[in-house]
Order: sequence, then structure tokens, then C-alpha cells
Amino acid sequence: MATINENFLKLQAGYLFPEVGRRVRAFKQKNPDAKIISLGIGDVTQPLAPAVIDAMKKAVDEMANESTFRGYGPEQGYEFLIEAIIKNDFNSRGVELEADEIFVSDGAKCDTGNIQEIFGTDNIVAMTDPVYPVYVDSNVMAGRAGSANRNGQYEKIVYMPCTAENNFVPDIPEKNVDIIYLCFPNNPTGAVASKEILKKWVDFARASKAVILFDAAYEAFITEGQILHSIYEIEGAKDVAIEFRSFSKTAGFTGVRCAFTVVPKQLKADTKDGKAVEVNPLWHRRHCTKFNGASYISQAAAAAAYTPQGKKQCRQIIDIYMGNAALIRESLTKLGYKVYGGVNAPYIWLRVPEGSSSWEFFDRLLTKANVVGTPGSGFGPAGEGYLRLTAFARPDDVKKAMERFKKM
Amino acid sequence: MATINENFLKLQAGYLFPEVGRRVRAFKQKNPDAKIISLGIGDVTQPLAPAVIDAMKKAVDEMANESTFRGYGPEQGYEFLIEAIIKNDFNSRGVELEADEIFVSDGAKCDTGNIQEIFGTDNIVAMTDPVYPVYVDSNVMAGRAGSANRNGQYEKIVYMPCTAENNFVPDIPEKNVDIIYLCFPNNPTGAVASKEILKKWVDFARASKAVILFDAAYEAFITEGQILHSIYEIEGAKDVAIEFRSFSKTAGFTGVRCAFTVVPKQLKADTKDGKAVEVNPLWHRRHCTKFNGASYISQAAAAAAYTPQGKKQCRQIIDIYMGNAALIRESLTKLGYKVYGGVNAPYIWLRVPEGSSSWEFFDRLLTKANVVGTPGSGFGPAGEGYLRLTAFARPDDVKKAMERFKKM
Repeated sequence: MATINENFLKLQAGYLFPEVGRRVRAFKQKNPDAKIISLGIGDVTQPLAPAVIDAMKKAVDEMANESTFRGYGPEQGYEFLIEAIIKNDFNSRGVELEADEIFVSDGAKCDTGNIQEIFGTDNIVAMTDPVYPVYVDSNVMAGRAGSANRNGQYEKIVYMPCTAENNFVPDIPEKNVDIIYLCFPNNPTGAVASKEILKKWVDFARASKAVILFDAAYEAFITEGQILHSIYEIEGAKDVAIEFRSFSKTAGFTGVRCAFTVVPKQLKADTKDGKAVEVNPLWHRRHCTKFNGASYISQAAAAAAYTPQGKKQCRQIIDIYMGNAALIRESLTKLGYKVYGGVNAPYIWLRVPEGSSSWEFFDRLLTKANVVGTPGSGFGPAGEGYLRLTAFARPDDVKKAMERFKKM
Repeated sequence: MATINENFLKLQAGYLFPEVGRRVRAFKQKNPDAKIISLGIGDVTQPLAPAVIDAMKKAVDEMANESTFRGYGPEQGYEFLIEAIIKNDFNSRGVELEADEIFVSDGAKCDTGNIQEIFGTDNIVAMTDPVYPVYVDSNVMAGRAGSANRNGQYEKIVYMPCTAENNFVPDIPEKNVDIIYLCFPNNPTGAVASKEILKKWVDFARASKAVILFDAAYEAFITEGQILHSIYEIEGAKDVAIEFRSFSKTAGFTGVRCAFTVVPKQLKADTKDGKAVEVNPLWHRRHCTKFNGASYISQAAAAAAYTPQGKKQCRQIIDIYMGNAALIRESLTKLGYKVYGGVNAPYIWLRVPEGSSSWEFFDRLLTKANVVGTPGSGFGPAGEGYLRLTAFARPDDVKKAMERFKKM
């Protein structure tokens, strides 16, 4: 008799975005003429950079010819891409990495969801609240979370509330924790952590032998010079941190699929008996056993994003989005809303009007202004009373959305 | 203190193909002039079909234009691809499936590796011996396998030897088993199971409430009309079987990455308390939480493989490989070798000469003939004494390899 993994039954109803999608579809069915503007799901809208397109076409041409055809590539990614990553994303900021510390994949969602597999199920996991749901749900499935309470929070997870009071940057937990998920620039709040605060986290992890899972998928949106792009810019971080990066937002690859994870070779975790084990070979084994490399075309595209032309063009696209972010911030501030984020991140974290819940305001915004946001409460109880707006829209649409906010 | 998943420490050394790679590289270093022919790793060599190339170029062009740009697609895959899959792969053989029973992914290695996550860790898993290592290793990582013995076999796994005596098709196990991995046409032996035998397996699974994980990645290589392409061609299979398919070998997508898994909605497994639970929503949840859809370009390419042109062109490519298979079979038979497979599968399972082990014959073939095979023992103890040769090589190379066999 085959039995299921009963941890799946502990998952809370509906992954956030499908629920948003359902409500939008229902509204559209009733109001087929409504011109809905989505500032909801964090999906890019600008076409790919010309340098990236050219590289993809060249890669496709190579696949048409026996002498240049590529079958299976290395599971960890092609050298040409790994070299470009190390040089541009890390060496440029004074961080040295070896090629076998980089694992190219088809997405940061997969990587942040799968990484927990190499750790024991007894680890105490710390998460921010609000949080990207994948961190939570992947741990629920693995049995590290226990059961959920009425708020949708799990008994075994240590939640670290991120609120206006702490500038949406979590305090070091007082409880014992083993694995800590941090995401800066943050999704959903758009907050960043200063170097001093990140150093505190690294020092804490080193002292307590914890591991930091650092999601830096939005680092390309940092505009302020003093904000770190990689956790490895902090001394000692390689001993305790795994970093996740993605081309999804940096180069508009949400439909192309390419990302990477950094697992430093000096990072160790313990067996239950207290024997230190290198984590890099464990992830290497996981990656090579359950993954067969990202598409060659996607990897060629990603490498093109690092060429001088590619960098310039991707930067221009990011500037468009950050122009949107600035417009949203300014417009909503003028209208008397309290907004956070949007300076070093493509997300604006909007305090909904007093007396309204996240979903109530979501529904009001959808029905009155035909604008879609993402309810903050969907990211955790501390997100209640907030709405996430993304800057990943066409500038014209953002302008229109802001006008509709004004009318509402 | 973060602790590791200690199940990883139970994994046996070196995934088979990296070890093959290491030995080949070492030989090359010592013999830089040797012209090595690989009939080892099962990777395609023919360029993509022109219809597929055209579709990819069109898809890339769409990504260059704001009005046709595609970001995140549905995690389960685009409708256009799912419709083509159902119509061509299933309806054509009298099998009805609904769109939400198909899950498009970036590879069958990922799917066959990840599927075990939705089942409890207490399930008794049955595997053929020899077997595709991913089935085993993913269960070791999850803790379903226990520790390995000297043969590299795990204490909790029920192995089903596949030998010349049973035509490399396993007998129904006498022990109680809950999850059964079957792969037909088989990797590595090239064997197929008759309809009667597959029906026995389905009936057994129905009677014992077991789940069959049916890997049909090589169905496109079937040449004999009476052999089933899908397990769902057997009545009642939808109640008990999950089927895996891939474009990797069918359409040469090992570098492009696209595959799919079928999870029928009527398939159920139990909670420990004996409550039947639908498995499809569990896989849906896993897929949507830890995966973000296959590349749009790869999905457009996969759909093109189902157009009349695409089907014809892919068939021509498969015919090239099956021509290789026939040549290998005939040549080696003439030389007095005992060979299996190669009729409905791109793999030839060669009995190595008496007194020689798989790895010994691998080394001899590499050093004397500069031909690379894959040692059968790498797929399990019952593979000892065999070598897998693949038909995925250029016809010229296969001819040369056969001449070198003759000289050796």
C-alpha cells in the first residue's frame, strides 16, 4: 500500500499567486471590458535585451548543425557562464570564488525550494514574516515546519517579524535557530539590510554554527552605493552562507529560466554526532542527481547579459522598472499613502488604509481601480495591512494605475 | 547548529557517468592522439529537427518584442504544448487524458528524481537491477533506502534482478512493495515488456494498492507494433501508474530541456490511517512550489516536434539511431558477442567475455579500441558482466567502432 507524504496535507490552502489569479479571472468574467493593470505578480514585461536575443539566436543556430550541436552540458553549468558570473558579479566586488562553488540552474525558485533537502529535518528554521512562500512551503513538505496555526504559521518555524518599527529588517532571534532564510533586497517589502546588520547576521551564524540561505535575486535593483550586493562582501560569510541569484529579474529571464546558487567550499554543517561535513559536495550530489543542467540556449543568453552590450542594455531595462518604482513611491506618497521599498528593489510595500485588511484592499483596488496588487498577508501575518506593488509593468500602465489610485 | 541530511552520506561513491568521464579524461591525457569514440553516455548527437529550430527562432523573436514577450508561464506548462502532447502521444493510442493530468518540466531526470517527494518515507520501494541510478539515489537521499551493502545495494530497497533468464523483465516480487519503478523500453538493458507482462504489473499494483512509476522516456524508439508505448494503454493503469516522458531522446532535447509527467486524477494513495488521497494535487502543489515552468523557447520547440513536419523529421533522426543500433547488434553478434536490446530501444546490452568484469571490459575497450561504453555493474549488481552501448552516435563513428571491436 503506497502512502503519501502527509506533510503535504499540512500546507495551507492555495499558493498565493494562484489565488490572486483566480480573483482576477472571476472579476474579468463579470467585467469583460475592464482594462486591468497588473502590479501584482512580480513578472517582467520588457522584452529581452538585444544582446541576449542575438546570443539565443546564435545558440539556436548551433543546435541546427552537427558540428556545433550541444547535448547534455555539465549539470553545474557551462564554464563560459560560470566564468562570466564570477568575474562580473563577484570579482568586481572583491569576492573570490572558484568555479565549482557556482551551480547554474533553471531558476531561483527551484534552488531556494530544493536547498533544504541537503539539511536534516530536525533543523530549526528561521524565516522572516512576511516571507516568499517557497521558503516556507518547501520546509513544510520536508516535515521541518510541523502544523499550522490559525494565522497560517507553523509551530516549528521561528518567525522573525519585519515591520515598519524595525525597517523590515529582522532582529537576531532569541531562540535557537539552525537555518536562516534572508532575502535582501527583500521580496515582498523592498527593504534592504545595511552592511552592519548583515555583518551581525554573519557573526551570529558563525557563533551559533547556523547556515544563512541568502536570496539575492534582486541585487541588480540596488541603487544606493553603500548597500552590499553579495553576502560574501562580508568577511567570514563564506563559512556560513549560501547565496541565490537569478537572471529572472536582472535580465528579464522569467520565461527563459536561468539562475545560480553559490555554495562556498568552506561552508560546513554538522552530523548529529557533531562531525563537520562540507556542504558543497552534498549540493553538488543533489544537483547532479536530480537536475540535468539548464537549457544551453538559456545559458548562452545568460552569458550575453554579462557582455558590455548586454550589461548596458539590461541596465537600461532595470532603469525603466526603477523609474516605475520611483513614480509609484512619489504618487502614492502624495496621495497620503505610507509606502516602503522601491529604492533598491522593484517592490513597493504599501500600507493599506486604516481599518482595511490586505485582501479587502486588494479587492477594492481590483474592483474600483482595476489595478492588481498582491495582498501582504499572503506573505505572512506581519504582512497583514500591506499590499505589494511591483515595478515590473509598462511605464504607461504604471502612470495609468497611479491616476486610477488618485481617482479612487 | 545546522545539521546535514545524513542520508546523503549513505550514497555510494561517484555517480556512474562522472566516473566514466574521469577514466576517459585520464586516458586522453596519457594518449592525446587517441581518437575516442563514445558509445557511453546516452546523449544524442544529431542536430535538432529543422521544424524545431524554426519554432525556437520564432520563440526567440517573440521574446524580443514587447507585445509578444512571455514572462512566467504556467508552472504545469503551456496549453499549446499540453494539447499537442495529449493528442499525439495519447489520443492517437486510444488513451484519454485531461490537460491538468500533464505536468511539463525541464527533464525526466528531475521528474523521476523528484516524484518520490510526494510519497511517505516509509514506503517500500521496488527497483529493477540493473537500474537508472537516479531512481535509487533520490530515494537514498529521502531516507527510504537505508544503508548500502558491499554490492552497493540498499537494505530497504527491494531489488528485482533482470537477467537473460527473465529476458530482463522483472518478476512480480514476493515481498510486499509499495512503489515500483519500471522503465520500458529499458535503460540500460534495451529490453521491452509485453502487454501481458505490463498488465500483470498493473493488476498486481491494483490488488496491492501499490504505485507504479513508469518511465517511458524511450517509447519513441519502439519499432515492433505489438509493444505498448504508454502504460495507460492497459485498462486500469490510471488508477495506479504515473508515467514519465521526455523530449530528450525523442526530439534530441538533451541540451534544450523539456519533458513531462502524467499523473492521472484517479490515482490515489493512502494516508497512514488508510484514507485515500488523490495524488495529482500533491504533485501539482510540489510542481508549483518548487518549479517555475520550463523555458518558453523549449516548450515552443517541443510543440514543434508534434507538427507533421516535426514528427517526420524527428522520426528520421530516430531512424538514424536505430540504424546504428541494428549495426551494433549485427556486428557484435557476428563477432560472437551475446547482445540484447537495440530493437525497440537505443541501447545495446552487451555480455562481456567470460572472466571479465564490466569495468575490466570497459577499460580494455577504452585502451585497446578507444571506444567508450558504460559498465553494466554501474547500474546494479545484476548488471555485472554487461556493458551498455548506446546508438546515439554518428553512423560513421559507429562503423569505425565496430571495426575496432573486430580488430580487438
